[in-house]
Amino acid sequence: MDVFEALYTTRAMRRVRPDPIPMDVQKQILDAAVRAPTGGNMQGWRFILVDDPGLKKKLEPLYQAGLDTLFSTVYSEPLAAAEKNPDAAASIELMKMARSARHLADHFSEVPLFLFACIGNRDTTGGSIFPAVWSAMLAARAHGVGSALTSLLSMYHPKELNALLGIPTAEGWSCAATVSFGYPTGRWGVAPRRPAHEVSGRNGWNGDVGFEVGEPLFEV
Amino acid sequence: MDVFEALYTTRAMRRVRPDPIPMDVQKQILDAAVRAPTGGNMQGWRFILVDDPGLKKKLEPLYQAGLDTLFSTVYSEPLAAAEKNPDAAASIELMKMARSARHLADHFSEVPLFLFACIGNRDTTGGSIFPAVWSAMLAARAHGVGSALTSLLSMYHPKELNALLGIPTAEGWSCAATVSFGYPTGRWGVAPRRPAHEVSGRNGWNGDVGFEVGEPLFEV
Repeated sequence: MDVFEALYTTRAMRRVRPDPIPMDVQKQILDAAVRAPTGGNMQGWRFILVDDPGLKKKLEPLYQAGLDTLFSTVYSEPLAAAEKNPDAAASIELMKMARSARHLADHFSEVPLFLFACIGNRDTTGGSIFPAVWSAMLAARAHGVGSALTSLLSMYHPKELNALLGIPTAEGWSCAATVSFGYPTGRWGVAPRRPAHEVSGRNGWNGDVGFEVGEPLFEV
Repeated sequence: MDVFEALYTTRAMRRVRPDPIPMDVQKQILDAAVRAPTGGNMQGWRFILVDDPGLKKKLEPLYQAGLDTLFSTVYSEPLAAAEKNPDAAASIELMKMARSARHLADHFSEVPLFLFACIGNRDTTGGSIFPAVWSAMLAARAHGVGSALTSLLSMYHPKELNALLGIPTAEGWSCAATVSFGYPTGRWGVAPRRPAHEVSGRNGWNGDVGFEVGEPLFEV
């Protein structure tokens, strides 16, 4: 697969089939992930794959509770605004995302594979783990496997999560992110975004970046 | 370019030629970057490209001072250990990285293009900016442009950096990372890493991940 097809079409895929991810694909996902950069090439990371039905069943209520918390706090206002103005493009996108996240919560334990990306205490910015996480998602995409990135579990239920996964927190380790993996029921496509020139500057915050982007520079 | 070639061979390229990066390539780099995921698709980011010689000259001493600080604190012990045992594989890698970072510091203002990736105060984990930063680096790779990711400036000289770039810190914005871009003088290759199975577990921190990786699963 062309690198631009992967970069442009790896969008959140939270509706997936329960079919397992073949071991060779899992191996490629993690082998690609460890090629990503880390500060000083320290590789202070550990990747935990979860496919055990019992363990997924224990994680499921934590994710559900985390989503409830998110929707009733951070997203409370945006969701209320979207419900009042349901025809606006931004509202449609937000409600779509909310339904999709709810679907994942309702079907959490049916997702075939999760990746928990853990970091040692050296990585305070996330700059030494999220490139690897994103590489894992791009490598999965190349094999037709969808993914979705979430930090709900580590954000709202770190203690329970660390205990369930056996993360040695006393040694400074924590979980930075969760990725769900599965063969998507929907279609791949380029996700809508604010155009690059609207969120960019040159030689200063407000400097004209010098180009405009109309349609995305990759077409499916 | 195949997605795996990009994922496996995008290693830190700090020795670059001064030749400018064409505007079309810069546009593709940022258009690819904005396809990356953000929490709730909030896209709370701003990308500042820097190619002005005067501005680069002002940033240069900050990067140099930042590197001095890094080498005399965080890396002081590892560098001293490497000097005592210079033939160990890890020592060779570390010294290579240190020389390469010093080269970038010495030639900072000759680098044709920098990207400063800024985040609003919603992104506390880095999970909503580093996928985009890594996408920018992968898109650059596909065009033969090398890159190196560093957080030195934002870590050690945030005030001066924010002032020079005009980042509205009062509104909660900050710079998460710097990426240098340029056509490399060296060759592309797969960077050495600890094998995936050594840094992974299944269904728990110490669970056998179920596979072993010998040689990297992509060859140049």
